Amino acid sequence: MSLHPETLVPSHFLWDFGDGVATITLNRPERKNPLTFDSYAELRDLFRALKETPEVRVVVLTGAGGNFSSGGDVHEIIGPLTRMDVLGLREFTTMTGDLVQAMRDCPQPIVAAVEGVCAGAGAILAMASDLRLAAPDAKTAFLFTRVGLSGADMGACAILPRIIGHGRAAELLFTGRNMSAEEGERWGFFSRIANDVRAEAQALARSLADGPVQAHYITKQQLDAEWAVSIDTALGMEAEVQAECMTTKDFHRAYEAFADKRKPEFKGD
Amino acid sequence: MSLHPETLVPSHFLWDFGDGVATITLNRPERKNPLTFDSYAELRDLFRALKETPEVRVVVLTGAGGNFSSGGDVHEIIGPLTRMDVLGLREFTTMTGDLVQAMRDCPQPIVAAVEGVCAGAGAILAMASDLRLAAPDAKTAFLFTRVGLSGADMGACAILPRIIGHGRAAELLFTGRNMSAEEGERWGFFSRIANDVRAEAQALARSLADGPVQAHYITKQQLDAEWAVSIDTALGMEAEVQAECMTTKDFHRAYEAFADKRKPEFKGD
Amino acid sequence: MSLHPETLVPSHFLWDFGDGVATITLNRPERKNPLTFDSYAELRDLFRALKETPEVRVVVLTGAGGNFSSGGDVHEIIGPLTRMDVLGLREFTTMTGDLVQAMRDCPQPIVAAVEGVCAGAGAILAMASDLRLAAPDAKTAFLFTRVGLSGADMGACAILPRIIGHGRAAELLFTGRNMSAEEGERWGFFSRIANDVRAEAQALARSLADGPVQAHYITKQQLDAEWAVSIDTALGMEAEVQAECMTTKDFHRAYEAFADKRKPEFKGD
Repeated sequence: MSLHPETLVPSHFLWDFGDGVATITLNRPERKNPLTFDSYAELRDLFRALKETPEVRVVVLTGAGGNFSSGGDVHEIIGPLTRMDVLGLREFTTMTGDLVQAMRDCPQPIVAAVEGVCAGAGAILAMASDLRLAAPDAKTAFLFTRVGLSGADMGACAILPRIIGHGRAAELLFTGRNMSAEEGERWGFFSRIANDVRAEAQALARSLADGPVQAHYITKQQLDAEWAVSIDTALGMEAEVQAECMTTKDFHRAYEAFADKRKPEFKGD
Repeated sequence: MSLHPETLVPSHFLWDFGDGVATITLNRPERKNPLTFDSYAELRDLFRALKETPEVRVVVLTGAGGNFSSGGDVHEIIGPLTRMDVLGLREFTTMTGDLVQAMRDCPQPIVAAVEGVCAGAGAILAMASDLRLAAPDAKTAFLFTRVGLSGADMGACAILPRIIGHGRAAELLFTGRNMSAEEGERWGFFSRIANDVRAEAQALARSLADGPVQAHYITKQQLDAEWAVSIDTALGMEAEVQAECMTTKDFHRAYEAFADKRKPEFKGD
Repeated sequence: MSLHPETLVPSHFLWDFGDGVATITLNRPERKNPLTFDSYAELRDLFRALKETPEVRVVVLTGAGGNFSSGGDVHEIIGPLTRMDVLGLREFTTMTGDLVQAMRDCPQPIVAAVEGVCAGAGAILAMASDLRLAAPDAKTAFLFTRVGLSGADMGACAILPRIIGHGRAAELLFTGRNMSAEEGERWGFFSRIANDVRAEAQALARSLADGPVQAHYITKQQLDAEWAVSIDTALGMEAEVQAECMTTKDFHRAYEAFADKRKPEFKGD
């Protein structure tokens, strides 16, 4: 089911849309933008709907008031979880995992702009994005261990080691400590540190939205699909999908532009 | 088969135990703590027994006399290997692989404190630990190539690339050169460099042992189990195990402590 | 089918051979050494033939005139591709993938010496090598997106994340931007930066060729084969192949040399 990006008014976060770029802003700044049962579900449904919404070419994910997200709210999430049986708990962990799956399955590259607190499920939302930029004060903590939980939350034991390496992921998940912006850049979690991180994320999203979005989708899909296959399987998959990319008008236009020494213009077809 | 951590006296290394933290010290300092057939086997049996020994919550692995370990002894290991047939050789490489497997299968996080020489099978023991701290003088060398062997020793071709990346692992395994402490920190092999590395490793082990050890075990197990599966399989596994974690008393106690603005206390149940 | 390294005269690049080290130099310096349909095919056939050519112990891959390679030529490759049907396109992407497969399947370690421009399929040839050294001016760009294509080209979505991490690979593949030599070293793409990169690559190749080449082959093979298997499968594979390595004369000679405090000499048998 698609959504109408021009008129969408979500209940639990801000939505802004213009010229192919959608911006999702977690927006309970007085609490550092925690997640609740309802906001998890609405985000999951939104990312699922983006699969059918080609007008949205790129997504920016950020938080209001100088913080990204403090993660699952202690009172609104953790308290109720302590009163659930295992069936209810599994339903919850399945829903949060489904949000990550929806972020990975949507065709749009997702750019996370991370300022201040980025903790727990907030850190997961950054991790599950395609590209991450950090403000100098970004503090990212996979702090599940601090509330007695494992690091195996919303895909962290699978995804984090691929981004920063197995040893660094183990340290963050076993200790729950903050990763500074500087560490995150050194370790490959953040592409760069930017003083005006939200403006830089918009500029990056703009340039991606002006690019070949069908090709971007294939890049995103293959980075995940080739995750756990042998090299020869990967080469076979890429031979197939790249040949299809070569049939797009964007590719043909790019060639003509290069041959004419013009800047290519991409239209996503 | 469990062991009695209070009274254990191993034959080939030192064992120290107190308040949940066990310390294994390789202890032939005059030879830089080499491994022998007997010490491999005893280490393997020890890590296997730790699986049934919940009183031990965290393990520290280190060496006596300013070095971690020089690896398989030239006279006591390499010489005899040159006189074995392929069946005997396979029995040996299977035993050393079984030591790594036992280190990965035991529920305790293993913290390696690495000083001085850390070479060959010594480097493998550090690699197969969960977390690694380095003294400034640590020199880590996967030097199998120097004795005419491949880098495919005790899991190095699988595990090392996950920790430091495929290109860096290839360089270390093809050349056998030393990785300095500084490189190891930059590359994600070591969590940090510490002047008093053995004291820092004890402090880290202490803080892990005071944490939710059932959750730690799940973190350890899932970091390995999600190693070579697709993202959606990983998300399914995590939904299951994290829901189980949410039924522990440690999780409930942590919530109550947070709600009361107290520091949570974990008991491992 | 083997080749005769002493007398080989390829049509589309330079070939130099001496004392076990073969050097392939892409050599259309006035165009920054682009690839063409014919040079792709000749490179693929060459790397396939190296599988049967044990006299060649190590390969150096480089470019003439201060650049590595500008990748697929705009006029000689991209133009014709825009006029092909999907069957022809798939034949092309299969051929380029087969070149990468041949580079990974040959027993020789491949050392890439990268100067100046290293772009598109040129960046892939560097990525598909075993070890990479950079001149300070090396600019490596996976710029497929700039011509409207996906990053899923010749294995990049599988191999690049293993070398530099998933987030950095995503950034390079989505944006097509240059990775500087300094970034490449920090990220683990390059082993080091060297002013005289071609001489340093020769020295590294020399030292590898003087090493245990059967063992090197197993290292190369296992780094790929253990890519997407579980840890226990990897340990089983390594127990098998390392035991075989221990039956080589190189291993026996190395032991004797160590016991006599001589430098070991390897002969590849």
